Amino acid sequence: MTESGRFITFEGGEGGGKSTQARLLGDFLRNLGLPIQLTREPGGTPGAEAIRRLLVDGDVDRWDATAEALLHFAARRHHLVEGILPALKRGEWVICDRFADSTMAYQGYGLGLGREPIERLYAFAVGNFAPALTLILDLPVEAGLSRAGGRGGGEDRYERMGIPFHRRLREGFLDIARREPERCVVIDATGDVETVHAHVLSAVRARFNLP
Amino acid sequence: MTESGRFITFEGGEGGGKSTQARLLGDFLRNLGLPIQLTREPGGTPGAEAIRRLLVDGDVDRWDATAEALLHFAARRHHLVEGILPALKRGEWVICDRFADSTMAYQGYGLGLGREPIERLYAFAVGNFAPALTLILDLPVEAGLSRAGGRGGGEDRYERMGIPFHRRLREGFLDIARREPERCVVIDATGDVETVHAHVLSAVRARFNLP
Repeated sequence: MTESGRFITFEGGEGGGKSTQARLLGDFLRNLGLPIQLTREPGGTPGAEAIRRLLVDGDVDRWDATAEALLHFAARRHHLVEGILPALKRGEWVICDRFADSTMAYQGYGLGLGREPIERLYAFAVGNFAPALTLILDLPVEAGLSRAGGRGGGEDRYERMGIPFHRRLREGFLDIARREPERCVVIDATGDVETVHAHVLSAVRARFNLP
Repeated sequence: MTESGRFITFEGGEGGGKSTQARLLGDFLRNLGLPIQLTREPGGTPGAEAIRRLLVDGDVDRWDATAEALLHFAARRHHLVEGILPALKRGEWVICDRFADSTMAYQGYGLGLGREPIERLYAFAVGNFAPALTLILDLPVEAGLSRAGGRGGGEDRYERMGIPFHRRLREGFLDIARREPERCVVIDATGDVETVHAHVLSAVRARFNLP
């Protein structure tokens, strides 16, 4: 096998347009003739989607940040072993809507667990593997929440957590990008979908020498 | 509050009679007038029981040892915060059928993850808290499997894992007991229910100065 897959993740707070941008990037790469797999976290494989339902459903009996981080990494482990790694081995380009940086930003920075326990969970569950490119869709907290609020759907638990939480979250993602400048590119997500897509494409073209 | 609760765990491989012995110990302590809570892992609270179902159901899409350890500690965290600690605060004696030593023995020793990652998960999810007394019901592997095999029910995944796995498991529990002799008492579980119950009672009486 001369060609092997690439793992690209989209990260960022609420309302940045991650899933839209992931889909558009998938279309672009597919048009270049590359085999694409679009996926998401938490979830992406049947086992990990079952854990996602535990995380998303039922506020009656809610998890604390510690249990939540453990559940996210359990789901991630399943997704990695059963979904991502086999696809990369087959030579596919895997585009994932959220990955481990979200656990670091939400549970580590936003909910206050700190970096170290999340780094240890990463080492245990993911090991030395990491995305080839992470696109962090960044926009001001108020703009993101106002966009996300118009979206509907039941998964709005974090959107209701207040401005200070979302500021810590945004700062967390930006700090992750500062610490790993080779892996992460911060994308200005304040523009319209086509403008942001253009920023995404220039980052992807530069990283992988694509036309 | 002059009186506060105690946390007692039963541990060991398959077929040692943990749930029966936990129930009998509960009866004994209740007859002394103590407030008792009987519980089990994985599970013990609604959230943790939901994780138990993920661990126990559906072999189609099975977890590896790493994902399993993460799921066990996620369930444990919920059980601890929502079940065990509040009960101890109310002054109850909490008797638990399996706790963290099972994850160490099954995933750490039996499935080969080793001690260190399990110790780190423990520190993250449980912190400095530990059982006041752990009763390890020990018996030869063949005897335990033959007893467990007669029990029926669907949760027989580990029973089917073969003799070498169960030998590592037993050795794991005995090693845990050697490392923490103040917390752990190894109970010979080869006798009949009443004989084992008598061993359990003498360990509990000695530890807590009970009549």
